[in-house]
Amino acid sequence: MSLNLTGIAASKGIAIAKAFLLETPEMDLSKKEVTDTDQEIKRFNNSLDKAKEELQLIKEKTLKEMGEDKAEIFSAHLLVLSDPEIIDGVTNKIKGDNVNAEFAMKEVSDTFVSLFENMDNEYMKERAADIRDVSKRVLLHLLGVENTSLATIDEETVVIAEDLTPSDTAQLNLTYIRGFATDIGGRTSHSAIMARSMEIPAVVGTKNATETVKNGDLVIVDGLEGDVLINPEEEVVKQYREKLEKFNAQRKEWEKLINEPSETKDGHEVELAANIGTPNDMEGVLSNGAQGIGLYRTEFLYMGRDQLPTEEEQFEAYKTVVEKMEGKPVVIRTLDIGGDKELPYLDLPEEMNPFLGFRAIRLCLERTDIFRTQLRALLRASSYGNLKIMFPMVATLEEVRQAKMILAEEREQLIEEAIDVSEDIEVGIMVEIPSTAVAAELFAKEVDFFSIGTNDLIQYTLAADRMSEKVSHLYQPYHPAILRLVKSVIEAAHKEGKWAGMCGEMAGEETAVPLLLGLGLDEFSMSATSVLPARSQIRSLTKKDAEKLVEEALTLSTADEVAELVKEKGFI
Amino acid sequence: MSLNLTGIAASKGIAIAKAFLLETPEMDLSKKEVTDTDQEIKRFNNSLDKAKEELQLIKEKTLKEMGEDKAEIFSAHLLVLSDPEIIDGVTNKIKGDNVNAEFAMKEVSDTFVSLFENMDNEYMKERAADIRDVSKRVLLHLLGVENTSLATIDEETVVIAEDLTPSDTAQLNLTYIRGFATDIGGRTSHSAIMARSMEIPAVVGTKNATETVKNGDLVIVDGLEGDVLINPEEEVVKQYREKLEKFNAQRKEWEKLINEPSETKDGHEVELAANIGTPNDMEGVLSNGAQGIGLYRTEFLYMGRDQLPTEEEQFEAYKTVVEKMEGKPVVIRTLDIGGDKELPYLDLPEEMNPFLGFRAIRLCLERTDIFRTQLRALLRASSYGNLKIMFPMVATLEEVRQAKMILAEEREQLIEEAIDVSEDIEVGIMVEIPSTAVAAELFAKEVDFFSIGTNDLIQYTLAADRMSEKVSHLYQPYHPAILRLVKSVIEAAHKEGKWAGMCGEMAGEETAVPLLLGLGLDEFSMSATSVLPARSQIRSLTKKDAEKLVEEALTLSTADEVAELVKEKGFI
Repeated sequence: MSLNLTGIAASKGIAIAKAFLLETPEMDLSKKEVTDTDQEIKRFNNSLDKAKEELQLIKEKTLKEMGEDKAEIFSAHLLVLSDPEIIDGVTNKIKGDNVNAEFAMKEVSDTFVSLFENMDNEYMKERAADIRDVSKRVLLHLLGVENTSLATIDEETVVIAEDLTPSDTAQLNLTYIRGFATDIGGRTSHSAIMARSMEIPAVVGTKNATETVKNGDLVIVDGLEGDVLINPEEEVVKQYREKLEKFNAQRKEWEKLINEPSETKDGHEVELAANIGTPNDMEGVLSNGAQGIGLYRTEFLYMGRDQLPTEEEQFEAYKTVVEKMEGKPVVIRTLDIGGDKELPYLDLPEEMNPFLGFRAIRLCLERTDIFRTQLRALLRASSYGNLKIMFPMVATLEEVRQAKMILAEEREQLIEEAIDVSEDIEVGIMVEIPSTAVAAELFAKEVDFFSIGTNDLIQYTLAADRMSEKVSHLYQPYHPAILRLVKSVIEAAHKEGKWAGMCGEMAGEETAVPLLLGLGLDEFSMSATSVLPARSQIRSLTKKDAEKLVEEALTLSTADEVAELVKEKGFI
Repeated sequence: MSLNLTGIAASKGIAIAKAFLLETPEMDLSKKEVTDTDQEIKRFNNSLDKAKEELQLIKEKTLKEMGEDKAEIFSAHLLVLSDPEIIDGVTNKIKGDNVNAEFAMKEVSDTFVSLFENMDNEYMKERAADIRDVSKRVLLHLLGVENTSLATIDEETVVIAEDLTPSDTAQLNLTYIRGFATDIGGRTSHSAIMARSMEIPAVVGTKNATETVKNGDLVIVDGLEGDVLINPEEEVVKQYREKLEKFNAQRKEWEKLINEPSETKDGHEVELAANIGTPNDMEGVLSNGAQGIGLYRTEFLYMGRDQLPTEEEQFEAYKTVVEKMEGKPVVIRTLDIGGDKELPYLDLPEEMNPFLGFRAIRLCLERTDIFRTQLRALLRASSYGNLKIMFPMVATLEEVRQAKMILAEEREQLIEEAIDVSEDIEVGIMVEIPSTAVAAELFAKEVDFFSIGTNDLIQYTLAADRMSEKVSHLYQPYHPAILRLVKSVIEAAHKEGKWAGMCGEMAGEETAVPLLLGLGLDEFSMSATSVLPARSQIRSLTKKDAEKLVEEALTLSTADEVAELVKEKGFI
């Protein structure tokens, strides 16, 4: 019988292979009263020990078979199992509430998972996935339930699972795994992020793939459209093989554009840059032909450690990236952290609304010790290439002035110390707070460039936490207000002879590209894997048509109408 | 010795009298390990009982001496002492963490206090003050410490205290108390709100009044400037007596304006309206000559109870207000609640960033049962006067369309039921989300009026939680972006022949009034006690001068420069 499911297209490509069904064990985590809490805590500790032993074994096996990179995840998991906040949390709960270990573990883990999931970056979401994963491992031991493993797969396979945990994805052997489909998840869930980084097709959020697919079924995972086809007719399989070939051919076409300019048919050139998180991301940047780094997030330097990174450590990281780019622009954003308490060694205040709180430049202007160290490292790295400095979360001109003054002081200091500093470092700001977008004409006079951070700009402009499911429908990149703000930010920059870029997710989206081109955006910064498709798209357009499109889009009254127009006019 | 202190001017007026120092008992609330937790819980329960008995006595005494209104607060306090969330919270903490009752009580109470304090309205902040107050009472019993009482005062007095709790303010006998000064607190803390509502001069946040003032010192509390003078020279006392007389004279002048138009010297008339929370506030509205209700917050109907208010209850409340206004406009805002879990019977999701979450119209469009009931009540009340309906937290045109459609359906339904409904109810929206302000020209086509909610608009536009101390410096009403947004909202309304009002705190501020007048605002809605001073101010200005002021203000680049300009040009 042939059957189709629809989900969210999470990673491009098409996989056609036999299904391997990763079964989810049943777990009863209901609340039960416990009288002997000491005994219950002992039971919890036993399961902890078993989970640790198991992780140790998997780690060694993964290291041997799949390399250090993949094994690292299990070291992280072992750390979670030693985290006193989690261990004491569970122990206290068992004792304080007289409840069973399963329930206590679930409650504590849920708290941490939702804390991390609500944070504003992929690194932190990965931590949420880790905690969920480790917690599941402990729970399975508590309940004495067996878990299936992906490590046994040894033929061409499409994996069908409720969800893929970090342990699961670390065990995906790309020699055999062609793609996967999951019941739950969205475009930014762990499994989706991993699929894109491994470049295998994936569809997530199908709701009931695991109920529908049986082991050995022939399955097509269409990561372009978000479809999952189960036991399709031979004719359909043939069509999909053709589609797959076409996709591969297109990918080859894209690859030819690595050294081509990002230029429209009527000769308007823009810069396509990449967003990175660590110097490790440079490989993807170079192999995808990015013309610069539009956003280097420096937060990762500060994370997963127990003290601030030194000036030297930072200098090395910045220097590596700048050197590897060989004179191409590298925009490095100063520390954007805080509010949600990501850095335990900083002891930040707990806040009611962390997204509206004490973070990024707000924190740096108070903790000038942290800020000055970073600025010194940036200034020192500046003489090794084309480094630009960018301040995040700017809301007022006073902040810009203060930050620039501190930068000038550190610059003076280095020169006094006879240390090389580039003479023409551009200093810009993220435009991600509505006040800065609305009054952009004032800011344009005092900075060298703007980079529009749409992820935050959209959530603040619509007052909708994009991590909150209940209001995610209000996270609207094509809302008329967003188009108007982007337009006036770009115009404000150009009026002062400055350039305007964008480093939010929007910059790489197929629907957005023609609109942004029409609005006159100079630099588009996106994940490295989006650069070539975007270049291909831009090379197929004319600036003139894009401008006409924008003109019409600006007359529309809802986001849906705008997205519809882009389609209707044949831009995608 | 003469000494001056400076604090925050919390309530206008001048008090000159002998000081009564309300001493704050020392409390040791440090964490101690406890082995016999059962005994500790018993100790906690004993203190609870004592606190209840005491509250019962105070309540009866207050009822007899000061009336039902003031006694009510103690009924509320008795309820807090029976709240299982608090009682169980403390008990669990003692048991689970093996800690002393004082520490447990403090921790639990702090959690609730910060929860309520971070909420977006005065009613909820009052609940925070109540919990802090009750908790202190229990702690004093736990520690066996005596508390001073204000009830013993029987001569003209200025009260000096670290802070005034709700129990304290309920016991302030206005026959003797001339004013007060506190060490802590800001303009929206409990003591400040109470001072304004009792119309007695107050200065809060002096930091060290209690350390500096001694019982019996002659003290001047200048609630106009925020100064506290201790044992001033006779000459100074004389000056202040004159200032006080002048203030009283001015107050008399203001009172003369109750029935005068709110008209500039060059004949431009605006509407000065009042914000209310319950029909009880109507007395102040009428006695202060408000020309309408610019914002009737309907949340209070839903609070402090264990189920939703019925259509009938709501109808009665709306009808009362509308009738009392005798044909003058009454703008009623539909339910603006959610996110921060204010209504226990609604079971709302806990959110990471409640200010960016599921609330107000977002909630109403999902919980249409709640919404429809309120709309029916509003429609029914509309035939008793000049009722206008306003939707809060609007971010998209889809929301406006959906809400209007539901309203139209309920209207049809009522007409079918042969129930009277006014034929020309204006339907407007709060403009408090940046997207709506930025794209106001689109919204103006589909609504009858705008009311700019500056409290939220400022916090979203600057991405700064105004309840968070760490970023409160970014809550800037005069930020260039805010001026630009207000300008374009008003212009958008006028272009479509609609009116634009403002119902945030800004509308009543002396510095803001000339700017808003210059920007062309039609309706200013504020707390009732600000109406007459604002009217007096407007009658002293010309529209033309205000327009010139705005023109210049729009060229400035920071909030400070704007506020400075208003002063410099002699507008305040």
